[in-house]
Amino acid sequence: MRYQLYYWPSIPGRGEFVRLALEDAGADYVDVARGARGMAAMERLLQGRGTATPSFAPPFLVAGRQVIGETANILLYLGARHGLAPKTEVARLWVHQLQLTIADLVLEIHDTHHPLGPNRYYEEQIEPAKLRAAEFRDRRAPKYLGYFERLAKQNGGYLAGRRLTYADLSLFQIVEGLRYAFPKAMKRLERKHPRLVALHDKVAARPSLRGYLASDRRIAFNQDGIFRHYPELDG
Amino acid sequence: MRYQLYYWPSIPGRGEFVRLALEDAGADYVDVARGARGMAAMERLLQGRGTATPSFAPPFLVAGRQVIGETANILLYLGARHGLAPKTEVARLWVHQLQLTIADLVLEIHDTHHPLGPNRYYEEQIEPAKLRAAEFRDRRAPKYLGYFERLAKQNGGYLAGRRLTYADLSLFQIVEGLRYAFPKAMKRLERKHPRLVALHDKVAARPSLRGYLASDRRIAFNQDGIFRHYPELDG
Repeated sequence: MRYQLYYWPSIPGRGEFVRLALEDAGADYVDVARGARGMAAMERLLQGRGTATPSFAPPFLVAGRQVIGETANILLYLGARHGLAPKTEVARLWVHQLQLTIADLVLEIHDTHHPLGPNRYYEEQIEPAKLRAAEFRDRRAPKYLGYFERLAKQNGGYLAGRRLTYADLSLFQIVEGLRYAFPKAMKRLERKHPRLVALHDKVAARPSLRGYLASDRRIAFNQDGIFRHYPELDG
Repeated sequence: MRYQLYYWPSIPGRGEFVRLALEDAGADYVDVARGARGMAAMERLLQGRGTATPSFAPPFLVAGRQVIGETANILLYLGARHGLAPKTEVARLWVHQLQLTIADLVLEIHDTHHPLGPNRYYEEQIEPAKLRAAEFRDRRAPKYLGYFERLAKQNGGYLAGRRLTYADLSLFQIVEGLRYAFPKAMKRLERKHPRLVALHDKVAARPSLRGYLASDRRIAFNQDGIFRHYPELDG
């Protein structure tokens, strides 16, 4: 079965967490909105035309007749099918729990540049963004990264247990994104979270991903996504 | 089996979404942190003492030897066991997807009074809160509620399909919370979302919940939780 991934074509954003799982699994998929007429197809499905399970927002994945939305939910579906999550229900819920905590972190990262909400331009909210970003750098990022560091230590390198899961792929993307958005702060943070850096490096070196990461299927970070680099928010 | 629910004892917060499911299911549970030494027990588990699956934050649920965190993940677990979610995997993922969208909405509601992050007092961020709340009332709330209204219409009253699921219980709590936090704005919004009001009323009248909702197990909204009433943020 060829999956159809629907996500904004110009940013890594939340779609990248799904893409990393698909690529690592060697799954057959097409990135619909990056092709001709893809955006129109995405819009139709978001409006509930042609599906009884429309998503609130991208990304969503079409798998046969199923349309599955919400990043963590897509990974829950893919993990079970592609060896990216353990087989027992207890362990699968644990991995999913970590993914949901990562989802909360992603929202907080987004809000560093949009504390007043997504509908105003960054330029209209620079001052509150500076305050929110400072709190993120000093309090929230250390809290989240400290939590994941503790788990990586407890479990010998990966977050959830002895084997890699989709949550580890997502954590790789978090490290990549934070390096892009907050290079100065991240330099400090990495010194205190060596196991997350090691986990990042292990994911980056996976034979299943090396080709992808160097390809143009991998979308570069830029100033429209979740992870944005504004020097005034770093420090 | 008697479940143990761990959540802050003085606010409905995210714990209430779990409590509503437990109560509707008639499940046997104890609200640990509301009892003597409960907070100390919660703190120990958060620090990873006595569990290999510590949560980043409350709520979490102890079920036998399992410790399950993240609100939507707990509901995924409970829904399958207590008739609050459909049996097929396709339908279970759909209900879970809706719960994750509700989780995003909950975070946006929280951020109306804490746009600069959770570590500063509300009084330090009233002006940005006014801007964020206005955007929430005018743009974000209509977008979320419009999405759920469309699903309730499509499915004959409930969100996910012909039968009530835990996502409907959570939507009830969203309506209750928005009425508390934004009484003026919600009056307008309710006129445009009659099916969500009907869904709310149907949940409130459930024999399985009526007793609970009138009991002191139900924690009242107050100024420390996710849903807070600040007149200057309503309008």
